[in-house]
Amino acid sequence: MSDTKIPYKIYLSENEMPTSWYNLRADMKNKPAPLLNPGTGKPLTAEELTPIFCDELVAQELDNDTKFIPIPEEIQNFYKMFRPSPLVRAYCLEEKLGTPAKIYYKFEGNNTSGSHKLNSAIAQAYYAKKQGLKGVTTETGAGQWGTALSMACAYFGLDCKVYMVKVSYEQKPFRREVMRTYGASVVPSPSDTTEVGRKILAEFPGTTGSLGCAISEAVEVATKNPGYRYVLGSVLNQVLLHQSVIGLETKAALDKYGIKPDMIIGCAGGGSNLGGLIAPFMGEKLRGEADYRIIAVEPASCPSFTRGTFAYDFCDTGKICPLAKMYTLGSSFIPSANHAGGLRFHGMSSTLSQLYHDGFMEARSVEQTAVFEAAEMFARTEGILPAPESSHAIRAAIDEALKCKESGEEKTIVFGLTGTGYFDLVAYQKYNDGEMSDYIPTDEDIAASVAKLPKVGE
Amino acid sequence: MSDTKIPYKIYLSENEMPTSWYNLRADMKNKPAPLLNPGTGKPLTAEELTPIFCDELVAQELDNDTKFIPIPEEIQNFYKMFRPSPLVRAYCLEEKLGTPAKIYYKFEGNNTSGSHKLNSAIAQAYYAKKQGLKGVTTETGAGQWGTALSMACAYFGLDCKVYMVKVSYEQKPFRREVMRTYGASVVPSPSDTTEVGRKILAEFPGTTGSLGCAISEAVEVATKNPGYRYVLGSVLNQVLLHQSVIGLETKAALDKYGIKPDMIIGCAGGGSNLGGLIAPFMGEKLRGEADYRIIAVEPASCPSFTRGTFAYDFCDTGKICPLAKMYTLGSSFIPSANHAGGLRFHGMSSTLSQLYHDGFMEARSVEQTAVFEAAEMFARTEGILPAPESSHAIRAAIDEALKCKESGEEKTIVFGLTGTGYFDLVAYQKYNDGEMSDYIPTDEDIAASVAKLPKVGE
Repeated sequence: MSDTKIPYKIYLSENEMPTSWYNLRADMKNKPAPLLNPGTGKPLTAEELTPIFCDELVAQELDNDTKFIPIPEEIQNFYKMFRPSPLVRAYCLEEKLGTPAKIYYKFEGNNTSGSHKLNSAIAQAYYAKKQGLKGVTTETGAGQWGTALSMACAYFGLDCKVYMVKVSYEQKPFRREVMRTYGASVVPSPSDTTEVGRKILAEFPGTTGSLGCAISEAVEVATKNPGYRYVLGSVLNQVLLHQSVIGLETKAALDKYGIKPDMIIGCAGGGSNLGGLIAPFMGEKLRGEADYRIIAVEPASCPSFTRGTFAYDFCDTGKICPLAKMYTLGSSFIPSANHAGGLRFHGMSSTLSQLYHDGFMEARSVEQTAVFEAAEMFARTEGILPAPESSHAIRAAIDEALKCKESGEEKTIVFGLTGTGYFDLVAYQKYNDGEMSDYIPTDEDIAASVAKLPKVGE
Repeated sequence: MSDTKIPYKIYLSENEMPTSWYNLRADMKNKPAPLLNPGTGKPLTAEELTPIFCDELVAQELDNDTKFIPIPEEIQNFYKMFRPSPLVRAYCLEEKLGTPAKIYYKFEGNNTSGSHKLNSAIAQAYYAKKQGLKGVTTETGAGQWGTALSMACAYFGLDCKVYMVKVSYEQKPFRREVMRTYGASVVPSPSDTTEVGRKILAEFPGTTGSLGCAISEAVEVATKNPGYRYVLGSVLNQVLLHQSVIGLETKAALDKYGIKPDMIIGCAGGGSNLGGLIAPFMGEKLRGEADYRIIAVEPASCPSFTRGTFAYDFCDTGKICPLAKMYTLGSSFIPSANHAGGLRFHGMSSTLSQLYHDGFMEARSVEQTAVFEAAEMFARTEGILPAPESSHAIRAAIDEALKCKESGEEKTIVFGLTGTGYFDLVAYQKYNDGEMSDYIPTDEDIAASVAKLPKVGE
C-alpha cells in the first residue's frame, strides 16, 4: 500500500455534491439522432410524447442544448439519504493482483435498490408528483429498477404499478417483496389486466413473459388511466442526464486529490450507468480539454456495441415504443437462456451509440464465467459482493490492471461498481457449483434478428 | 427540516476512526461474573479456554482491567473498507412523525455481511491467523454471523467451516451461497461429520436442527482438529470489546457537532450490538461524567432482560459450553415458531446483564407485528430496508419520538441500525400478506425452562 495519502474511501461532503445535472448532449457536435414515430417515420414531438411521459421529462429528453440542468432541492435532499456515494481506492485488489496500477471504483450499491437506478427513479417520481399525477407505471426484469422506483414513489406518496416479467416474478420473490414493502403493486407479466397482456396470453398460454411484453403492458396502463405516466430506467436521454450525478461526484472526488484517470470503465446494458459515469470526462474529451480512454464492457452473449448495427430500431420487442437510432442486435434478439449476468438489452442508448460511432469510446465484450471469476475475486478482496452487471466492469478493470503488471505502467483506472449482487445468488450458486457455461451468439443468430430491423429512418 | 447545519449523514474521516477498542469492563465497579467450568463449578482459567478459543481472544475475554486495547493495524485497514459507518440524521422520519425529537441512527449495514457482525469477525480471524492457525469453526442460524466470518476468513486466507442450522440451510439458500462465494464450507447441522451430530441424528432422525446443536458440532470440530479454534459472534466479552468501535465512532461523530444524546437505544439478542453501541456512553455514566437513558429492546417472544432470571446458565442448548451468569430464560427455552424477527437467544451478555442488574440501563420488549410496522415506515421514509432485529430499536425510537410529540420535548434519540433485511424477505412477505401474528410466552412457559437452570455457581 504505497499511496497512503489517498484514503480507502473518498467521500464528498454534502456541500460538495452536484447541484446540477450535466447534459452531455450539449457538448456533442453530432447530436444523438432523434426518436422517431414508428408510424410516420418523423421525429417525435413533445406533444406526441407527453401522453406517455411527464412533461418535464419530455423537455429533458428533447433538450440537446442546455448544459447544466439544476437538480430540484427535493431531489437533492433525497440524494443526501444515499449520496454522495464513495469513490473507493481498491488497495486490497491492487495488492492481490500485484499491479502497479491504481484502481478506483465508484460504488453505487449502498442503498436498498442495490444500484444506481435510484438516481433517476427519484427524479422521475419527483416530476410526476410535481405535475400532480396519481402514479406511474413501469416494467422490471430482474427487479432493480422496479425496486428503485417503488422507493421513490413511497417517498413522494405516488402510486406505483410494476409489470414484472413473469419468470422473474416467480423466481425472484424477494425482489417482489421489497417492492411490496415499499407499497408498489407488482403484477406478473403478461397479465389479464391489459389488452395487450390478454392478447399475448391467448396466443401463447404458457409464456413466462419478456421485458418487451412488460413494457407494452406498462405503457398501455399509463396511457389509458388518467393521472398516470410511464417511466423507464435506462436507454433514454433523460435517464443519462440524471445519472450524470455519478460522474460529477466521481470527478469531484478525483479532483479533490489531484488524481487524473487514464481510463474509465463501465458496464453497458442500456447505457444509463455508463453514460452517467463518463459524462463529465467525456465532456472534457469532446471539448478537447483532456483525454481519457473510455471503455464500455458488455456481455459476449448480448454484444450490441461490438457486434450490433448502428440503425433505427424499436426499444421493445413488442414494437409499440418509439424508434431510436442505436447500436442494436435487432429488437427480436434474445440472449441465450444460459446468460445469467444481466445487461440483456438488445440495443444501447442513442447518446452513447453516437459517441461510439464517432470514435470517442471503445467497447469490448466479456464471457460470463470470466465475469463471475472476477466477481468472486473482488468479493473476497474488497469485501463487496458485486452485481453480475457491475462485474463486467470489474473483469475489464482487472484485465487492464494485469496489463499494467506486465508493462510496469502505473495507470489510474476508474470503474463503475453499479450495485450489489444480494438478489443474484441463483447465478452465484450456478457459478459456485461449476454449472455456469458461456454462449456466444453466432453471426447467423445476429444476422437473423438484424434482418428484421424496421426500414424507417434510413 | 429545522436543523440544516447537521448533514444527513455524519461521516468521520479515516484519521478520526478509533485506533483502540474500549473495554467497558474496566470502568465497571461490579465486574461481570466469570465464566464457570460446568464440571467443577469454578471460574474457567486461560488454560482451560485456549483449546477452544485463540490465545489472544482468551486474554481479551478475561481482561476486566485494561481500558483501551489497541486495534492492530491490519484490522484497522480492513475496517477502512466498510467503516467509518455513517451516523445518519433521520430528517425524513422526524418529518413523517411530526416530532420535535431529533433522531440519529448509526447504520452498520453497508457491507456484504449486512450487519455489525463483521466488526468482530475480522478481529477474531486476525488473531487466528496471527496464531498460525489453519482455520476456524462456528455456527450460524440466520446466517449474518456466518457471512461475516466467511468474509473475514477469505481476507486472511483462513479455512472457515460453518455449521448452519439445517432449517436455515434449506430455507435461506442465498445466505449459504454468499458464504460459499467467500470460500467457506457450509454444513447443515446436525450432520454426520461430527460425533455429536451423528448422535443427535440417531436420536431425532427428522430434526431440522438448532443453534445449540450447531454450536456443539462446531466446538467438537475445533477441538478435535489441530490448527482450528471455535469462534462466536455475540454474548462474549471479547465480542462486545470489538463492537465498541460502533459506539466510539458514534460518540466521535456526535461530539464533532456538539450533540449530546438524551437516550441511546439498541436491540438486544446476545448483546453484541447493544454492548458496542453504548460502550463509551455507559463508560461516562459509570464514571459519573454524564447521564444518558440507555434502553435495550428485545422481542416479546424472547424476553430475557424483562422476564428472565439473573443466574448462571449454559450458553447453548446442548449444555457443552461454559456457564455464564446472565439474564436468561433457561437454555431449554425456545421462542415460538411464529417468531420471525431474530434475537432468539435465551440469555444475554454477562456484561450487559450486570449493568442491567445494577440499574445502569432499562429494557423493554416489543411485539413483532409492531416491529414490522416500524420497519415498513422506516423503509418508506428513510429508504433503507432494515433487518428485523434492527427494527426492534426503530420501534422503540419511534415510540420515544411520539412521546416527545405529545410532550413537546426536543429530545435527542440515538439508535443502532444494525443491519439490512435483504435476506429476511420471507418474514417481510408474511407481514405484507397480513399473515404475521404475535405470541408472548406465558409465565408457565418461562418458569418451566427456568426450573431447569443448572444448580452450580449460586
